[in-house]
Amino acid sequence: MERIYIETLLKEKPQKAKLTGWVHRINSLGQVNFVILRDKTGVIQLVMTKEQLENLKLETPITVIGKVVENPKAINNIEMQVEDLNLLGKVYDSLPFEINKKTIQAKLETQLDNRTIALRRPNIRAIFKIQQEIEEGFKTYLKSKNFSQIHTPKIIDSSTEGGSEMFTVDYYGRRSFLAQSPQFYKQMMVGAGFERVFEIGHAYRAELHNTWRHLSEYISLDVEMGFIENEEDIMKLEEDILNYIFSHLNKTCKKELDMFNITLEENFKIPRISLKEAQDILLEKFNKRSPIGNLDAEGEKIFSKYVKETYNSDFIFVTEYPISKRPVYTMPHESKKEVTRSFDLIYKGLEITTGGQRIHDYKMLIENIKKFDMKPENFEFYTDTFKYGMPPHGGFAIGLERLTMQILNLTNIREASLIPRDLKRIKP
Amino acid sequence: MERIYIETLLKEKPQKAKLTGWVHRINSLGQVNFVILRDKTGVIQLVMTKEQLENLKLETPITVIGKVVENPKAINNIEMQVEDLNLLGKVYDSLPFEINKKTIQAKLETQLDNRTIALRRPNIRAIFKIQQEIEEGFKTYLKSKNFSQIHTPKIIDSSTEGGSEMFTVDYYGRRSFLAQSPQFYKQMMVGAGFERVFEIGHAYRAELHNTWRHLSEYISLDVEMGFIENEEDIMKLEEDILNYIFSHLNKTCKKELDMFNITLEENFKIPRISLKEAQDILLEKFNKRSPIGNLDAEGEKIFSKYVKETYNSDFIFVTEYPISKRPVYTMPHESKKEVTRSFDLIYKGLEITTGGQRIHDYKMLIENIKKFDMKPENFEFYTDTFKYGMPPHGGFAIGLERLTMQILNLTNIREASLIPRDLKRIKP
Repeated sequence: MERIYIETLLKEKPQKAKLTGWVHRINSLGQVNFVILRDKTGVIQLVMTKEQLENLKLETPITVIGKVVENPKAINNIEMQVEDLNLLGKVYDSLPFEINKKTIQAKLETQLDNRTIALRRPNIRAIFKIQQEIEEGFKTYLKSKNFSQIHTPKIIDSSTEGGSEMFTVDYYGRRSFLAQSPQFYKQMMVGAGFERVFEIGHAYRAELHNTWRHLSEYISLDVEMGFIENEEDIMKLEEDILNYIFSHLNKTCKKELDMFNITLEENFKIPRISLKEAQDILLEKFNKRSPIGNLDAEGEKIFSKYVKETYNSDFIFVTEYPISKRPVYTMPHESKKEVTRSFDLIYKGLEITTGGQRIHDYKMLIENIKKFDMKPENFEFYTDTFKYGMPPHGGFAIGLERLTMQILNLTNIREASLIPRDLKRIKP
Repeated sequence: MERIYIETLLKEKPQKAKLTGWVHRINSLGQVNFVILRDKTGVIQLVMTKEQLENLKLETPITVIGKVVENPKAINNIEMQVEDLNLLGKVYDSLPFEINKKTIQAKLETQLDNRTIALRRPNIRAIFKIQQEIEEGFKTYLKSKNFSQIHTPKIIDSSTEGGSEMFTVDYYGRRSFLAQSPQFYKQMMVGAGFERVFEIGHAYRAELHNTWRHLSEYISLDVEMGFIENEEDIMKLEEDILNYIFSHLNKTCKKELDMFNITLEENFKIPRISLKEAQDILLEKFNKRSPIGNLDAEGEKIFSKYVKETYNSDFIFVTEYPISKRPVYTMPHESKKEVTRSFDLIYKGLEITTGGQRIHDYKMLIENIKKFDMKPENFEFYTDTFKYGMPPHGGFAIGLERLTMQILNLTNIREASLIPRDLKRIKP
């Protein structure tokens, strides 16, 4: 007999079935006993005899064969009367915290120390089903628009993008770095003839503070597109991708979204506002001062709330960041002084994207590197491509864990990372 | 007017069109001039006047609008008479090597130094279209079989799997390592209730030799499956995945496979043979001695040829490797002495996979770690999960670049890595 998933059993209601999973709960009543079995797809009540219950501990992996019968008192009104029971593995210890109650009575830190135990709860695994489908939606949409998937190196030679926040690697005796982003490589791949590329891969930040919204290792969803008019094309693309992802999640993750009481809107437009306007509104309406050329975390929160109330949008593109506050490769505006063709995307009070048009002219790029007091020779691996005909291009990156966290209204980004890494955490 | 791709133009043959791309070749004949335009999807002949040709250098990114007409002398019998020409970027230097001739007259090393130039050739970019679709096929098949995609950390605390070949990372002052494989984490995720998982991610090996088949940073296609009978389930799964990938490539990459004159067979079975039998055949039929408990590179080549002639198969599963030659987590055979439930997959003379059943019993795993003269406390982050009911499981990994190389009969694995990293190479 082939094993079927609990989800399939609940749909098809066969008379007899074989199930496999872990013992989630035991309710021992003497001669008749109820055991909740948990597999990847759900839970079901098993009815067992006293003899069958012997040696059965919580979390034992088992296989059962039995009759499927209706019982209005059981979860989903269905139970299995176990005829055949097989223990597939052993339990050697009692759990560090209970996982079969309504909530886990353990701090997030303890849950993360015992991540594989916490993940046995369906509502924690659900976060990663949703994360997987965010990634899938991202990829599917971009493939349909002729983007190529790339994998670029994470061990890099020079700390061109702000060295202090980079991890160093001993690369055969040479001091190297873990890439903060695939920025340079994705631009180079546009120039290499792929025209449009995306990458789903790890990015590394040696963050010196432990906050609720930073990870030392995270997944970056990166996009770069050639032959654009300007940064408007890039914002339009991101708007389209996010719309696609949300529809995709509504289609593929209904059960999981329901666990978090989340309804995702579709066919939304994202308003755009310049940084200066945003700062002015913050100051005038909320008496909130912003740092030069940026919004701070508190400002993002307040402004997002204002946008929600004013435009009924969870998202807002903030545009036209000043030259001095954006990376060296950012395209300056030709007609507006001191500002760039760049943007951030803020979602429910948190920045989830930085993007914009890039400089594509070789000379202009070299000049800009000098203006930033950097050495052009450190950038040759990158700028060389620009010598041989680089088209106008731009792109952006979305932090996968940040997007997941914001979609599900989680309060700490570690909840959206399967095995998180931060200032203090390198285990498990 | 919307830009269309050259591939689309050739199919739809509109009367007028707008194209965008790079100047691939210039044939200047005076009043009438032929320019080959190259975009992501193909090449086409443009007819230009003398005036239009001014300032046009090889590899300039341009946009053209013009009439599409038939011309039996042009590539694909179609050309565009350019009415409107726009230069989108500038060329500042002549190419390090010619890319518009039948072959590149430059060594692989030079091509890799100027990777983004070499990649402008359609037949080099084709390698990565195929690689992308290998990955896509792998993922699509596994998703259809209820596997979850995971991302596990690449910065890890301990060098549990053979420290000498690992890169060290300075992690906030703590000596850490880049993961050689997601082995421990994928097993843990089976135990965490995902049951079946796969990962597509970077893996790192500090290889101390520069060979045609090793990279320091590569993409590992990892699979781990719970609730199995034994390693046969795993080999069957890999056989099914490879069949699916090959059909998928035939469907999605016909043009690219044709560039390499590759036809991929479908519906194939992979024969299985024990390591001992393989070694005996090598010795008896080819007078080739093997190292204890393994085949060497030459042995893999000779044996593969023998398998091709005997079973008409490009693949062969070699099974039952000895305990002493397999990692500490490998499941020993209960009835056959000194051998494990493990396998390698050899494809056209090269090992592309190592896999097998793993030990799932906590006590047995701890005992085995001790037998291998290792310290159980170094493995706690991994073995802790096994205390709480681990089901029988197993898995394997395929090196993405190796599979790509073997499918296309490339001679050096660096050709199958977009930006390769090796003992000597950390640029671009």
